[in-house]
Amino acid sequence: MTQPPERLLDRIDAPKDLHGLSEEQLQQVAQEVREHIIDTVGEIGGHFGANLGTCEIAVALHSVLDSPTDKILWDVGHQAYPHKILTGRRDQLPTIRQYEGLAPFCAIHESEHDIMGAGHASTSIGYAVGIKEGMKLAGDVDAGRVVAVIGDGAMTGGVAFEAIHQAGGLGTPMVVVLNDNGMSISPNVGALSRYFNRVRLNPKLWHAREGVEEKLITLPGGIGAAFDRLGPQLKESIKSFWAPGLFWEELDWAYMGVIDGHDVRALRRALKAALEAGRPVVLHTATVKGKGFMPAEDGGLEGMEKWHAAKPKSITNRAPTVVVKTPASAAHPVTPAIPQYTAVFGEALIDEVRRDRRVVGITAAMNSGTGLNLLQKAEPEHYFDVGIAEQQAVLFASGLALEGAKPVCAIYSTFLQRAYDQIVHDVCLQELDVTFAMDRAGLVGDDGPTHHGVFDIAYLRALPNITLAAPRDEAQLKHLLRTALTQGGPFGLRYPRGEGVGVALPSSAEVQAIPVGKGEVLREGSRVALIGYGSGVGKSLEAAALLAEHDLDVTVVDARFAKPLDMELLRGLAAEHELLVTVEEGVLSGGFGSGVWEALNDAGVHVPKMLRIGVPDRYVTHGKPALLHAEIGFTGKEIARKIEAALLAGHGSVLSEA
Amino acid sequence: MTQPPERLLDRIDAPKDLHGLSEEQLQQVAQEVREHIIDTVGEIGGHFGANLGTCEIAVALHSVLDSPTDKILWDVGHQAYPHKILTGRRDQLPTIRQYEGLAPFCAIHESEHDIMGAGHASTSIGYAVGIKEGMKLAGDVDAGRVVAVIGDGAMTGGVAFEAIHQAGGLGTPMVVVLNDNGMSISPNVGALSRYFNRVRLNPKLWHAREGVEEKLITLPGGIGAAFDRLGPQLKESIKSFWAPGLFWEELDWAYMGVIDGHDVRALRRALKAALEAGRPVVLHTATVKGKGFMPAEDGGLEGMEKWHAAKPKSITNRAPTVVVKTPASAAHPVTPAIPQYTAVFGEALIDEVRRDRRVVGITAAMNSGTGLNLLQKAEPEHYFDVGIAEQQAVLFASGLALEGAKPVCAIYSTFLQRAYDQIVHDVCLQELDVTFAMDRAGLVGDDGPTHHGVFDIAYLRALPNITLAAPRDEAQLKHLLRTALTQGGPFGLRYPRGEGVGVALPSSAEVQAIPVGKGEVLREGSRVALIGYGSGVGKSLEAAALLAEHDLDVTVVDARFAKPLDMELLRGLAAEHELLVTVEEGVLSGGFGSGVWEALNDAGVHVPKMLRIGVPDRYVTHGKPALLHAEIGFTGKEIARKIEAALLAGHGSVLSEA
Repeated sequence: MTQPPERLLDRIDAPKDLHGLSEEQLQQVAQEVREHIIDTVGEIGGHFGANLGTCEIAVALHSVLDSPTDKILWDVGHQAYPHKILTGRRDQLPTIRQYEGLAPFCAIHESEHDIMGAGHASTSIGYAVGIKEGMKLAGDVDAGRVVAVIGDGAMTGGVAFEAIHQAGGLGTPMVVVLNDNGMSISPNVGALSRYFNRVRLNPKLWHAREGVEEKLITLPGGIGAAFDRLGPQLKESIKSFWAPGLFWEELDWAYMGVIDGHDVRALRRALKAALEAGRPVVLHTATVKGKGFMPAEDGGLEGMEKWHAAKPKSITNRAPTVVVKTPASAAHPVTPAIPQYTAVFGEALIDEVRRDRRVVGITAAMNSGTGLNLLQKAEPEHYFDVGIAEQQAVLFASGLALEGAKPVCAIYSTFLQRAYDQIVHDVCLQELDVTFAMDRAGLVGDDGPTHHGVFDIAYLRALPNITLAAPRDEAQLKHLLRTALTQGGPFGLRYPRGEGVGVALPSSAEVQAIPVGKGEVLREGSRVALIGYGSGVGKSLEAAALLAEHDLDVTVVDARFAKPLDMELLRGLAAEHELLVTVEEGVLSGGFGSGVWEALNDAGVHVPKMLRIGVPDRYVTHGKPALLHAEIGFTGKEIARKIEAALLAGHGSVLSEA
Repeated sequence: MTQPPERLLDRIDAPKDLHGLSEEQLQQVAQEVREHIIDTVGEIGGHFGANLGTCEIAVALHSVLDSPTDKILWDVGHQAYPHKILTGRRDQLPTIRQYEGLAPFCAIHESEHDIMGAGHASTSIGYAVGIKEGMKLAGDVDAGRVVAVIGDGAMTGGVAFEAIHQAGGLGTPMVVVLNDNGMSISPNVGALSRYFNRVRLNPKLWHAREGVEEKLITLPGGIGAAFDRLGPQLKESIKSFWAPGLFWEELDWAYMGVIDGHDVRALRRALKAALEAGRPVVLHTATVKGKGFMPAEDGGLEGMEKWHAAKPKSITNRAPTVVVKTPASAAHPVTPAIPQYTAVFGEALIDEVRRDRRVVGITAAMNSGTGLNLLQKAEPEHYFDVGIAEQQAVLFASGLALEGAKPVCAIYSTFLQRAYDQIVHDVCLQELDVTFAMDRAGLVGDDGPTHHGVFDIAYLRALPNITLAAPRDEAQLKHLLRTALTQGGPFGLRYPRGEGVGVALPSSAEVQAIPVGKGEVLREGSRVALIGYGSGVGKSLEAAALLAEHDLDVTVVDARFAKPLDMELLRGLAAEHELLVTVEEGVLSGGFGSGVWEALNDAGVHVPKMLRIGVPDRYVTHGKPALLHAEIGFTGKEIARKIEAALLAGHGSVLSEA
C-alpha cells in the first residue's frame, strides 16, 4: 500500500504557516487547495466554480498579509472556500453548508479570520472603508491593512459604487482585489461587464504599465505641444491604454492591472505595491471560473454556469461522475419527479407572456435561480437581466409599468430587501402594476441565515396598495401568477425553494385568476381552525391529519392572501371555533398571524384564543430545510402538539387520547 | 396707476405655448419663471435654490420636446417648480406644499406632465430606462423621447449607477441632463463630487469638444506611431481632455459637456444633438444653485445651503425681508423657543462623543437636517457624510462597529428604507453596535407621502437582535440616545420632525441610560390603559385629560421601547383594565400595537379588548402635521372619542356625561 504523497497543505493550519514558504511552494499550495476543493465539494456538493478561481488569490493574500491583524474581506463569501481552508478549517470543509457544520459563507462567529459576515453581494468595499476609518478613529490607522476581494459581478450592485465613491473621497488606504472572471452565477450583463471584458480580453493591457511609462519618461519634452498635432483617431488607442484605470482614477482610486489571478508571484508583487500606496487602490485580476477543472474551464460560459455549484457525488477522481445505467434501473419505470416551484414559475411566466404581450420578466442576475432562463430562451424580448442590482430591477419595472407593461420582478425574498425603498416609494405609492415573484420565501436550507426569506410578509404587509398572496402548491402558483397579472396594482407573490407538493398542474387553458382576498376551506371541522398561508397550508393539513388520529377533527383553511384578508371567512372561523391557529413560514413579529388578529380586532369581532406558528424572533442557521423546520417547530407534529397544549391550557378540555 | 408690464409667462399655459417663441423670448421666459418663483416661494416658503437653477433647463426641455408624449423625468422633484409653472400650474404655485394644494414634488396623479412621482433621490435614470424599453416592448420605440434631469448630488446614490449600467448595456436611446450645481442640500462630498468639480471648474472644458476634434481630424496620419514618442507627462493633459467623458463612455454612454445651464440657446442645441444620437447620452450642464437671487448666488456655499429652502415671508421685493425690531417687541421678553428634536439630538450626540470617543455620527447628505452639522463643527473627526448613499452609510457603520466604534447613523425614517437589506443582513444578523437615529419619524408635514416616516416600526420590529425605542419628549431623547450607546447591539431610535414638547433638558451630567425594555406609568387610572409610543404618549395624555373631564380617569403608560416590550408592565395593564389602547405615529399593520398584542397573546395572558391608534393603511397626503393628524384621527380628542365608543360598544357602560 503506497502512502499518498505528503501535501504542503497538510502543514498549513493557520495563515502564518504560509509565511516561510517560497513562491514556488505557495503556487503548489494553491494547486493543493484547488484539488482539496474538487475532491471535497465534488463529493458533498456546494459552491464550486468561483472557489476554484480564487485559490491563488487566497494564497497570495494570506502569504503577504498577517490575518486577522490585517483584514481580508471576501465579498459574498462563496468564493471564500480557499480562505477557509487556509485559516484552520481545512479538515472541516466536508461539513460546509451542513447543519451544525461550517457556514456556507464567511461568518464572524466562526473564525477570527472571517472579518465580516456576508451572503449578499457588493458589501465588502463598504465594510472595508468603515474598518479602516475605524482604525484611524481608534488612534492607530496602521493597526492593520485592509483588503476587500470582490467579483466583477458584485461590482454592479449600487452600494459597491457608493463605497468606492466614499473611499475615493476620503482617500482611505485600502486595497480592492477585483476578481474578474466575467461571470456572476450567470454570465454578467450590462455596460460594466462590457468594460471589464474590454480590459480583460485586451492582451496589450497585460503588460505592466509601469514599464511602458518608464520608457516614455526618457523621451524629450515638448510633448504638450505635440498633443495638439494628434488627431482623434488617437482617441481609441489612448483610451485603450489609459481607460482601464480612468474609470477608477476619476474616483480617486489608483488602478493596477490586469494581473494574472492564477500567478501567485505576480499577485504578491502587485499586492505589496498596492498596500504601500497609502490610498485606495484597485488591483484588477483576471481569473478563470472553474480553473483547474476541465469541464468547467473548457466548457465555455455554459460549463462555468453549470459548475457554479456542484451537486453531491458529482465528481469522482477529479472528473464528472459517470452514471452507468444498470439494466435493473432501466427496467423499473422511474416516478416522474415533482417539479421545482422555480421551474413551474418559469413555465407559467412564458404562458403569461404568450397570453398577454405586455408581460415582462426581470431578474437581478438570478437567471436560472428564478426560472427566468426558460423565459429568456422562449421569449427573449420579454426578458431583462439588470445584473446584481435589485433596486434598479424595481425602478426599471416601475418605468415599464408607466408605459403599460406588466413587469414581474423575479427576485428571491431575501434579495428583495435591497429594493425596499423602491417598493415603498416607487411602486406602492404610485400604485403601479408591478408583480414581485419572491422565490426562496421561507427557510432556504443550506445557504442559511443570510438567505432565509422570512421577513417579506412583515415588511410588505405594512405597505398600502399592495396585494400579497402565496400558493399552497405548484398548481396554485400558476393561478396566483395569473391573478397578479390580471388584478393590477402592486402584487407580492411568495413561494418556497425546492419542489412542489406533487399535485397535477393545470394546463395553460385551465389557469384562472383567483378572486383577490378570498380564502379556501380545505377541511371542515370543529373547535380549532388552522389558517395556513403558503407553505403553512401543507403543515396545517399534516397537523390536522395527526389530530384526526386523536379524534379531533379541525378546520383547515388556505388563506391564499395575506392582504387583503378574507374577512367573511375569518369572521365565520372566529365565531365557530375556540382556537384559531395561523401557520406561516415567516417571522411572527408583524407577520400573517398578526394580520389575522388585526383584521378581526379592528372589525370588532370577538377573537377566540389564537396560536401563531411561524419563524421565531432569531436568525435561523443553515442546514436541510427539514432539520430547520424541526428546530423551529414548523412541522405538522409540533403544531398538533401545540394545539393539544393550547386546548388543555385554555379550557381544561382533553383530546380523546391525550 | 401703471399696469405691470405684461409677462410672456402669462401666455404659457402648456408646454406647447413655448414652441413658437424665439430663443431670445425663451431666455426671457426662463427669467420670468425665476422671478415668479422668487416672488411666490419667498412669500409662502418652500424649496428654493435648486429651482432657481433649473429655469433655463426647464424652458429648453419643454421648448424642444413635446410633453407628455415626450417624457421629462425630474429626479427628486424639488428642482421641478419651473416645470410645474410651465405645465399649467403657474397660478397654483402659491398653494404648493399646502394641504390640498400642489404636491411638493412631481406627482403622477397631479399632472399628465409629471411622468413619475419622486421625493427620494436618484430614481429618474432607472425609470427612464424602463419607460424607453416599455415603448420598445409596446412596438413603438419612437413613441416618445425620454429625458431624465438629475442633480450631481443624486448621482452618488447607488441605484443611479445601477441604472446607468443597465442603460449603457442595453444602449437605450435616452438623455440624462446632469444638472451639476455642486450641491445637494449641503455641499456634496466624495470622489464623484471632486470629479464633477474638476470638470465643471476647468475652463478649458467649456469649449465644445467637437470643434477640437474637427480641427484634429484634418491633421496628417501616422499618429499611432507618434503616440509612442510621447511621455507620461502627457497623461494629465490627455486625462483632463478626455476624462470628463471617459467615466461615462466606459459605461457605453456618450458624453456632452460642459454646457452652460443658464444659456437656453446652448442647452437647446446640445439637447437636439443628444436626442438624435439614438443611444444613451449624458448632457453635463453647469448651473448655479440660487441663480438670480443674490444672497444665494453670492453667498458662497453657505448662502446656497441657507437658501436651499426659503422660509415663509423671507423675501420681499426679491431681497431678503428686513426684520425691524420695534421698541415694543424689545420691551417684551421673548419666550425661549422650544428646541427642535433635531437640534437636541445634534447637541446630545456631541455630548456622547465627548463622553465616549468611540462614538461617531454618520449622515447621508442630510447634514443640518439631522443636526449633525453641530457635530461636524464640534468634533469633525467624529463626523462622516457619505453623500446620498444610505446603503453605504449603514455598511460603513458596520465596518466601524467591527473596529469597536459606536456609530450612529442619523437618517430620516423614510430614507432608512433604502438601507433595509444592510440593516437585516449586515447589522442585525451580525449583532453589531450600530444605532439608527431616525429623525422625521411619523407624519412629516409639507413634504408629504414620499417623506412620511411611518413604516419604520413595522419594518424594524420584524428583525431579530434589534432594540427599538422612541422618546415622548426631547429630554427622553437624550436619555434614550445614551441608552442606545451603552446598551450595545443594533438600536433603532425614532423621533418626530419639529419642536419638542417644551420640557427642561437634562444637563450632560444628568443624562442616564434607561433600563432597556422598561416602560413608565405616567398616570394611574382604571378601566382603560393608554399605551403610548414616542409621540403617541403626548396624544395619550391629551386623550386622558379629555376623558378625565368626563370623570373617566384612565391609565397612561409610556412604553418607551417597542422591542423588547415591558412584559411585567403589560401583564399588569391587561389584568387591571377592560380596554387597552395603543397609540403610535406609524402604520398599524404590524406596528407597535400589534406587538403589544403579540407579546400578551404569546405569554398566554388573557388580552382585554384592544384599540389601536396610528396611521391607517393608505398613503397620507402633504400639509401641516396638525391637519394631517386631524385627518387620520391622531389627536387626543379623536382618541378620547374612540375610547368612549369602544366602552359603549363593548360593554354597554356609559361615561358620566356621555
